[in-house]
Amino acid sequence: MADMDPVNIDTMLARFTDHWLPKKIAQINDYDVRIVKIQGDFTWHKHDDTDELFLVLSGEMTIQMRDRNVILGPGELFVVPRGSEHCPRADIETAVLLLEPSSVVNTGDAGGELTADVETLT
Amino acid sequence: MADMDPVNIDTMLARFTDHWLPKKIAQINDYDVRIVKIQGDFTWHKHDDTDELFLVLSGEMTIQMRDRNVILGPGELFVVPRGSEHCPRADIETAVLLLEPSSVVNTGDAGGELTADVETLT
Repeated sequence: MADMDPVNIDTMLARFTDHWLPKKIAQINDYDVRIVKIQGDFTWHKHDDTDELFLVLSGEMTIQMRDRNVILGPGELFVVPRGSEHCPRADIETAVLLLEPSSVVNTGDAGGELTADVETLT
Repeated sequence: MADMDPVNIDTMLARFTDHWLPKKIAQINDYDVRIVKIQGDFTWHKHDDTDELFLVLSGEMTIQMRDRNVILGPGELFVVPRGSEHCPRADIETAVLLLEPSSVVNTGDAGGELTADVETLT
């Protein structure tokens, strides 16, 4: 993305209304910066080969893990360690920035109908 | 960082006042999430082996590049491609989130007195 323009996150968020469908907004080496809007419960899954970073932009989310719940508000981030089962949940619509290797599939090992291709917003 | 607590970025920013000294606030695989406060001019440098992501949290910065200037305000991000010479500048104090491999030195190939060890905030 040598000729990329600066990316305004709010502008990118305004371009979609769907939930649980991550959009790629930037790439750094072989990692993606993705944004996603979420509401409701996702599915329990894990990523065996990679950590995954969640940064809440607006709203509030809970990362349910097997031994605890991690609650994140705006400007708060958390890294789910590789191999840790987790299930994101949001009671209100919440915007999240994700950082993870470009190869990561949103549902990890779980698959299923929530599995999404990653659209790139440019 | 399997047992990390959620990280509140504003809380972390409140813990230091220095400029141009990145602080690590999270790790994802072999990448660091770092925050830094900047004001004034940095030094021209490049990172031959890696891209580098800048996300402005507050204030305004200019990433001077050889062929253009990239101006970033809050909520705006840009990836400096590997090998591209750049010189960050901020006329007012500006807080920036950086994403880059843990091995990255702030001054890249330039070295010099602005070269800083990366403190970890926990």
